[in-house]
Order: sequence, then C-alpha cells, then structure tokens
Amino acid sequence: MSDYNAPLADMRFVLGEIAGLKEIADLPGYEEATPDLAEAILTEAGRLAKDVLAPLNRTGDQEGCTLENGAVRMPKGFPEAYRLFVEGGWGSLPFDPEHGGQGLPWTLSIAVQEMWSAANLSFSLAPLLTQGAVESLQVHGTAEQKTAYLPNMISGRWSGTMNLTEPQAGSDVGALKTRAVKQDDHYLITGQKIFITWGDHDCAENIVHMVLARTPDAPAGTRGISLFIVPKFLPKEDGTLGARNDLRCVSLEHKLGIHASPTAVMAYGDSGGAIGYLLGEENQGMACMFTMMNNARISVGVQGLAIAERAYQQARDFARERIQSRAIDSKDAGGVAIIQHPDVRRTLMTMKASVEAMRALAYLAAATLDKAKRAPEAGERAAAQARIDLLTPLVKSWLTDCGCEIASLGVQVHGGMGFIEESGAAQHYRDARILPIYEGTNGIQAMDLVCRKLPLGNGDVMQGYLAELDATVADVAASNAPDFGQMAERLAQSVDALRRSSEWMAQAVVRRPEAALAGATDYLRVFGLTAGAVYLARGALYVQRQSGDDGIVMPGKRYVALARYFAEHLSVETAGLATSVMSGGDAVLMLSPGQLSA
Amino acid sequence: MSDYNAPLADMRFVLGEIAGLKEIADLPGYEEATPDLAEAILTEAGRLAKDVLAPLNRTGDQEGCTLENGAVRMPKGFPEAYRLFVEGGWGSLPFDPEHGGQGLPWTLSIAVQEMWSAANLSFSLAPLLTQGAVESLQVHGTAEQKTAYLPNMISGRWSGTMNLTEPQAGSDVGALKTRAVKQDDHYLITGQKIFITWGDHDCAENIVHMVLARTPDAPAGTRGISLFIVPKFLPKEDGTLGARNDLRCVSLEHKLGIHASPTAVMAYGDSGGAIGYLLGEENQGMACMFTMMNNARISVGVQGLAIAERAYQQARDFARERIQSRAIDSKDAGGVAIIQHPDVRRTLMTMKASVEAMRALAYLAAATLDKAKRAPEAGERAAAQARIDLLTPLVKSWLTDCGCEIASLGVQVHGGMGFIEESGAAQHYRDARILPIYEGTNGIQAMDLVCRKLPLGNGDVMQGYLAELDATVADVAASNAPDFGQMAERLAQSVDALRRSSEWMAQAVVRRPEAALAGATDYLRVFGLTAGAVYLARGALYVQRQSGDDGIVMPGKRYVALARYFAEHLSVETAGLATSVMSGGDAVLMLSPGQLSA
Repeated sequence: MSDYNAPLADMRFVLGEIAGLKEIADLPGYEEATPDLAEAILTEAGRLAKDVLAPLNRTGDQEGCTLENGAVRMPKGFPEAYRLFVEGGWGSLPFDPEHGGQGLPWTLSIAVQEMWSAANLSFSLAPLLTQGAVESLQVHGTAEQKTAYLPNMISGRWSGTMNLTEPQAGSDVGALKTRAVKQDDHYLITGQKIFITWGDHDCAENIVHMVLARTPDAPAGTRGISLFIVPKFLPKEDGTLGARNDLRCVSLEHKLGIHASPTAVMAYGDSGGAIGYLLGEENQGMACMFTMMNNARISVGVQGLAIAERAYQQARDFARERIQSRAIDSKDAGGVAIIQHPDVRRTLMTMKASVEAMRALAYLAAATLDKAKRAPEAGERAAAQARIDLLTPLVKSWLTDCGCEIASLGVQVHGGMGFIEESGAAQHYRDARILPIYEGTNGIQAMDLVCRKLPLGNGDVMQGYLAELDATVADVAASNAPDFGQMAERLAQSVDALRRSSEWMAQAVVRRPEAALAGATDYLRVFGLTAGAVYLARGALYVQRQSGDDGIVMPGKRYVALARYFAEHLSVETAGLATSVMSGGDAVLMLSPGQLSA
Repeated sequence: MSDYNAPLADMRFVLGEIAGLKEIADLPGYEEATPDLAEAILTEAGRLAKDVLAPLNRTGDQEGCTLENGAVRMPKGFPEAYRLFVEGGWGSLPFDPEHGGQGLPWTLSIAVQEMWSAANLSFSLAPLLTQGAVESLQVHGTAEQKTAYLPNMISGRWSGTMNLTEPQAGSDVGALKTRAVKQDDHYLITGQKIFITWGDHDCAENIVHMVLARTPDAPAGTRGISLFIVPKFLPKEDGTLGARNDLRCVSLEHKLGIHASPTAVMAYGDSGGAIGYLLGEENQGMACMFTMMNNARISVGVQGLAIAERAYQQARDFARERIQSRAIDSKDAGGVAIIQHPDVRRTLMTMKASVEAMRALAYLAAATLDKAKRAPEAGERAAAQARIDLLTPLVKSWLTDCGCEIASLGVQVHGGMGFIEESGAAQHYRDARILPIYEGTNGIQAMDLVCRKLPLGNGDVMQGYLAELDATVADVAASNAPDFGQMAERLAQSVDALRRSSEWMAQAVVRRPEAALAGATDYLRVFGLTAGAVYLARGALYVQRQSGDDGIVMPGKRYVALARYFAEHLSVETAGLATSVMSGGDAVLMLSPGQLSA
C-alpha cells in the first residue's frame, strides 16, 4: 500500500497555465487569492491529506461504519481527523466571509477538494455534502436561516446532507412521497429517505438535513416538491443546540466501496413529525436542490479525478519496485522493474495522461464557475454561466467514467497482487464505482447534456465552445514542434468528430429524441476525449512557448509527452464514437424491450 | 438478486450455426456427440447450474473460505454441490474414455463450462484446475501415472491444482526457486507457492498438485524447470489413499472477489520434503505446464463470457422490473420500466451483443481445438492447431476484458442499488476483476499474440484468418438485407483496421520490438472487436438465409439486431485503435521510466 502525495507541481501547472488562477484572483472579491496564499493553502492541504486522511483510507475501509442504538459510529480516527479538518478551517475556503467563509475562488478550492478525495474518498464526502447544503442556504436562505446555520456549517462544526432518494424515487425525483405539513412557523416532515450519505455519524456536533418533501396540496411530479432544513438537533435562539428532532438512522447499507462513508436509511417523523423549515418557497424545491447538485456534480467529477490520481500513484510506485522479467531490448537475463516494460509503460501513460486531462477539465470548470459569480460585466457572467451549465454534465460523467477505468488499470498493473485487498489497489476499484452512479447517474448526465445543454442559446453556447477548441488546434498546427508528433492532426480529427456529432445531435434531439438519447452516452465520451485532448495541448503549447534554445526539456517535456500520448492513443477513439452516435440508434431500438429481454 | 438461467437457445444457435457442432460430431472419436445427447447434456447442466450452483454464489461470497488447523473449510453447501457435480460425471465430459472420460468434444464441454462459471465463478475453478492437470497427465504422463491418477481426477473425486507462482516469480515463471531433489523413484520438493487456486479444500478426497520446481543442476530460467505431481495424500498401489504428503496450506488470501475460491499459500517440504513424481522429463516443465495453461486460457476466456452473461441477465431482469420516469415519447406522466429508456436499452444491447460475440469466439475456439485433435488429415490438424495457437491469447484477453467492462455496466444499470452488495451486481464486478490477471495477465497475452502468434507460419496463419474474415464481409455486402443497416461497411472498415495494424505489427515486431509491445494491447482489442463483429455477422447471414418470405422475423431477428448493433456501435472503435497502434509507440516511450515516475 502506498502513500498519497498531493501532486503539487502538476496542480500548480494546471491552476496557473490552464485554469488561469491569476486571472481569477483579479476578479472583484477574490483579491485575497494571492500566489503566496494559494501556495500556502496547497502545501498545507497536501500535508493534511497525506498525514491525516490518507492513513485512514484503508483502516476506514476495513472497519466500516456501525449503527448502534440508532447512532452511527465512524471508524477509528475519523472523528479526530474531522476535528483537525474543522480546526484548520478547510471547509470554509470558498464561502461567504460574512458568515465565516474565506471567500476564496472555487478554482483553488477544487484543487484542495481533489486532495481530500484522493487521500480518503469516504472522508471527503462529509465536507462535500456540507458544501452543497451551504451553497443552497447561501442562495435561498432567509437572513435568519443564514445566521442560524451558515457559521456552524461553513466551519464544519455542523455537517450537511442531501435527502432526495426514496425507494421508488431515484433518478425520478418527482416520484417522492415524503410529506411536509405546515404547522405554525415550521413543517412536520414524515417519510423515509434512502442512500443518505453521512446521514448520521459522530464527527460533527449537529447534522443539518436538507430534505425534499411534498406539501399536502402540491402538484404532482417535480413541480410539487419543496426543500426543508431538518436539523438533527434544533438550534436555539442563542445558537446552542436544543431538542433532538424526530429523525433517526434506521440502517446502514452494506456497500461495494466507500465503507467509511455511512450510507443511511433515514426515517423522519416516526414519532409524529420531524420539524423542518422551508428553504426558499413551497414547490420550488427542485430549484433549491439544483443549487446544491450542480456544484456537487463538479465535485463528484473531481472525485473521479482524485481516485484516478491515487490509483496512478499507487500503480506507478508498484511498477517502480516490482522486479519481473528482463527488458525486451536487453541481453541481460536479470529482471527489471516492470515500469521498464512497454505495455506497463503504456498503461501508466494512459492513466497519467487521462488524469491530467481530467484535472484540466475540472479546474477550468471551477474557473468558469468563479467567472460566472465574479466577472465584472453581466455579459461575461452570463457567458460563463452558460459555459459551466454546458460543462457540468461532462465533468460529472466523463471524469467519473475515467476514474473507474483508471482504477481498474491500477489493479491490472499490480498483477495478482492487485486482486489482494492488502495492496489497496482493489479498494480504489471498489470505491470508484459509486462515482458514475451518485449525484445523477452518468446516463442522466448524458441526457442532460444532449437535451438541455446543447440547445442553450439556440446552440450558440456549443458553437462558441467549438470555436475555442478550433483556435487551439490551429495553434498546435502552427507550432511546428517536432515533439508534438501527430498531435495537430489527431486534435483536428477529434474536434471534427465532436462538431459533426454535435450537429447531428442538435437535429436529432428535436426530430428523433429517442435516437438522440440512444447516442447520448457515446456523444458525451466524444466530448470528454476531445476537450481533454485540447486542454492538454494548451499546456503543451505553453511549455513550447516557454522553452529556450534547447527545445522542449524536462520538466515541461513531461506535459508535452502526456498531451501527445493522449492525442495519439486515446482521443483517436472519437471518430468511431461519432460514427456510433450518428448511426442514429436504429440498431439500439431495433428490438422492443420485450424482444430484447426474451 | 436474480437467478441464473442457462441461455440454452443462444447456446444452441452458436453451437450449431457458428461453431458447427454437427461437423465436429462427425470427426472420428466424437461420434457419441449426437444432437440428442448434446441437448440432454445442455439441459441437465443448465439445471444443475441453476438449482445447485447459482444459489451458492452469493452465500459463498459472503461466507468465504476459512483456514483452520491447516485445513481449508469451504462455505456452506459447497462440499455437497461438489459431490453432486462428481456424481453427475460433469468433470469427465471431454476426457479420454480409457480412463473414465466421456470423450465428448470440447465444443460441447465449453458450453457446459460456461454454465458452471456463470452460475458460480468460484466453484467453477475447481473443475477448471482439475481439467488442466488432467490434460497435462493425459499428454505427458507415463502409463503408470495415468492409471494412478486419471480415473480419480477425471471423475472429480480428486481435484487438481497448478503451482507456478512464487513471490518473486509471477509472469516471470523462470525466476522460481522451489527445489526438487531426486531420491529413488521420486523427488523431494521444498519451497513456497502463492496464489494456488483451490490449493486446499474439503470437497475432494485428494488434491493433486502440479508443481513447477527446479532440480539442483538445472539451467537458469525457464529452461531449467520441471513439473512434478505432488499429491496431498500419496496413492497406494491398490488405488487407496496412503500417507499425508509433506505439504500444507499456510494461509489464504483476502481477495477482492471469488471469495469462495480458496487462494492458498502452499508450503512444500517443511518437514524435509514433499514427495513428488516427475511428469514428463526434467527441464521440460514449461512444455508440460503449457499443456495445462493453453486450455486453461481458453477456459478463463469462457469465464469472462460467463460473468458477462450473468451480469447481463441480472441487469436485464432489473431493468424490466424497476419503474422510474416516464418514457421520452409518452405524454403519460406515469413511470415505465427503465428498459424502456433508450440509454438503458443501449447499455443492455452493448452487454448482450458483446456476450454473443464472446460466445461465438469461445465456441469457435473450442471447435478449432477439436479439429486440431481429431481431424482425419494431418494437414487439417496442423492448420487447426495453428489457428488455435493464434486465437488462444485473444480468447483469454479480449473475453476477460469484456467480462470486466460488462460486469461494470451491469452495476450501472442498477443505479444506486448496483453499489449495494445485496443486489449481487457488485459481486460480479468484483469477481470478474481476477480474469484479466490470472492464467497470464492480459498484457502477457498481448505480447504472446504479437511476438509469437502473428509470426506463425511466416505470417501465413494470420493471412489465412484475414482471408476468412474477408469472405464473410463479402457475403454481408452481397446480402442486401435492409435489416443489416451499415453492417457491411462497418465490418469492412474493421477488417481493414485489423489488416493494416497486423501488417504494421509484423514489421515492428522485427524492427522495433519496443514499439510493437507498446501497441500490443490496443492491437489485441482491434483483433477481438473485428473477430467478434464478423462472427456475429455469420450468425446474421445464417438467419437471413433461413428467413422466409416475411423477411427477418423473431427469434432470428434478435441475433441480426445484435450483430448490427455490434458492427455499428462497438466495432467502430477499431479504426481509432489501429491508428493508436500505428502511431508507433513514440509517445509511449517518450519519457524514460524515471521521467514518467517523477
């Protein structure tokens, strides 16, 4: 089992040269994010991730969470680690200084989140869920609600949850049945919620559940859903904790992975009704929930990146140490480290090049989020918001699909040892598998991309994005760098595949929605591979511009090699995928469900 | 958790119309394999798989194997199931009637093996390992050895193991250190072996370990390895069991999956030396071991097929029952079974089309094995042997890679429930992950394909194979079946990608072996996707030829749809992969191991 070391050099490069952290720090309100502060934060976060969180990853997996007398006990070390996390103020980075936040850019916060998730995916879910609840309160809360909840939640002394799912209502949120009946200044909530991440635990003083429920006369479906603040302990006027609310964890799921993240079945109102406070307005719950979910989707994408980085580090370290077989070009009968073998090297290049493409996507998405919030001109903000709307399903899905694939490659590099739990590679493979599922399955994301995001601005949002990709392709073509190999040609083919399949999709989604949906997942993959390849190329171009008379040398050469590898070996998949998309779904739908399932 | 039902109709179709079981039954020695007998065997095997083995899959996973006082105790129900398996004569299907086998074709035996593996992957490893040991004894054993071991091993009363791996000797078998010192008519074996599947258990009366070891004056590397028969209990002259041999299981691995398959660390000779009998000749151990391994590689490929079929059945059944969200083309607000949603349908088509492609490859490989053994003309046998040599790494790798991917898709179809162990989908995902690793990692298989198999017969073996693929493509092009969609064009592109990358490989393996090895895994995938697409097309052509005036209708339409889906949506990946292969590995090798791992 290997350590986790935050890849600070790689992170700095992507933050600085691809996501443009300096430009972000120039936005009004982000002036605090000086290079010195950013550096200090990254370094300190890396230390906490390595020294405190990473060592609990395996023990947390083995021990898991236990439910005793209605209370969840976390694995050994988790409460203490959580305390250190809160004391360090790590949960407060991106939030409103008015309520105790540090007001730092998401761009920086996302890099730090990557570290928590890489070090300990289970642990990282606590701040992730709290963050979603905070966002929602910041946007939709009344002044009183903000005062009552935000300081303690931003500090992390109280954690947050999201309560959407019920047995019959998963992706179909509108099918939920939990009831909310108004009584005086509050509502009484009754119902059962499942899959509640960190639904109960012994790390925070209080847990603030954000619960979707339906008032008695609400319209059917998603238009009749409201969001409620349902704290475990009711805060008193003076801010101290009052009575225990009528809610409890009735069981924990036995899961494939993230064993140290308690996934609770929560019962509300078994003794008459849990007290809940309406957030926003009645029947506007979906809007409030999407405030939580959109950011959470970016963060889950970052988890995909994080588990991939962790799996890569572990595979690389193993490949450096494991001696097996002689090198192909050597007459020496002695064994070499398996990192010398071309097929292992190819696997590691696939892992690392994918990680860097994912990182570029994630950090750029965060920078776009910052612009959407803080750009001085309304037009700039709107453009950035449209861009992040477009990219959110991509970041959630493509990064988490890659996370699973790379965790699987990590197992493979270990050979037989990879299948043994002791090595730790298997845990990443298990943990990663939740990522394409939660926070909206990747199939739902693909549908969102195709049906809601591509048509944004009558297709202009996507056109503008493609034009930016074109510009990078032209720069690569003009660069004449021998180390770039066939990068220009491969990028041009990928962007062409994305453009053709986008145009096809724009038509299909109107005229043949079933065919569009049948191709949505392949289309999303074309998008991810193309965007990843182009962003890596931007980094390579930066390296080339910075290179002196000796041409491209280390350490910049490393990024160039990864960009080239991605273009020549991974993004080449795009043309075939575009062909699949544009086949139009006839073969997908040729058999009726009954015929398929015969 | 769903049942397993052997897909008898699909199996019959592939056996009959693609693998040509009738033709195989005409080979001398296989006359017993009448259609009636084949049908009876498939039906009865399906019953045992469903009623006895499948119900133990989940309980075996939960309970696992335990080591107590040096003896392994299997999970509840396993010894009884094994007894039924032996009593039914299921282990004896393909073996020599002279020693109690039924002398049936591998073609039929492989279909039955698929059922065992799909029903219970852990269980299926016992007969699989025994089969490898039997094969090796049949080919390399003396008359006395055959008499002493084969009847009991063919019946399954005794099981077999393969002992290759040592901590420092995994893929690099030549690095093994276990010692064998001659003494009278036997050898004394000392050393430790790891990863010994079914190394100890309480199902069979005796366990016959096939152990690779090195005699004192043996040359270094693989040329100095000998294979020994090392029984747990030494058989007496009269066939009864005698003394306990000096060997024991010292620990069991804690694994990601196949929890009901005991993976043992075996110690030989702790009390002076385990008694072993040389199989074949000294220093010829690798040849004897390859007799075991080549068949085992086909069987492991079949395990990939099997877990994919199981995952498919479970996902399909879940998708039929799970109600969630309205259909895209419906105004009705009510939810529908998720199998109605195009993205779920696409996923299921991917799973099922892949399963059928894998099945075609596996059964055809088995038919080729039968021809290599039984064809009347020496030339035919030699051609079949060359063909199966070529296809073995493909069947092992491509089918097991697909097995993992499809088990992962199976989890995804289940949404949140997929991540909960109770659903069973997660177990397939865990179990499947061993398949690309054991019996030679898939990276080793790709190397074998490129370095040893493509050059067979100076490249003529591959050329002959390509010519056969061309013929099918021409038939599809000539078919003019509207239901075939773009199948002809896509197949032609895939075969072209395989041909181009094969030609490139043939050059590279001589001139730039590092570049060849860097592309070997992608090349193998081009090969698998192309072969799979073409074999499915053969089935589709058969359906078309059988179709009457109404055109292609159910049930044949189902196979046509799968063939078309595979060609239009999955095999389209081949051109991009061929481009990756022919990029030549410059980007793979651009960074030195030190630079990559910085």
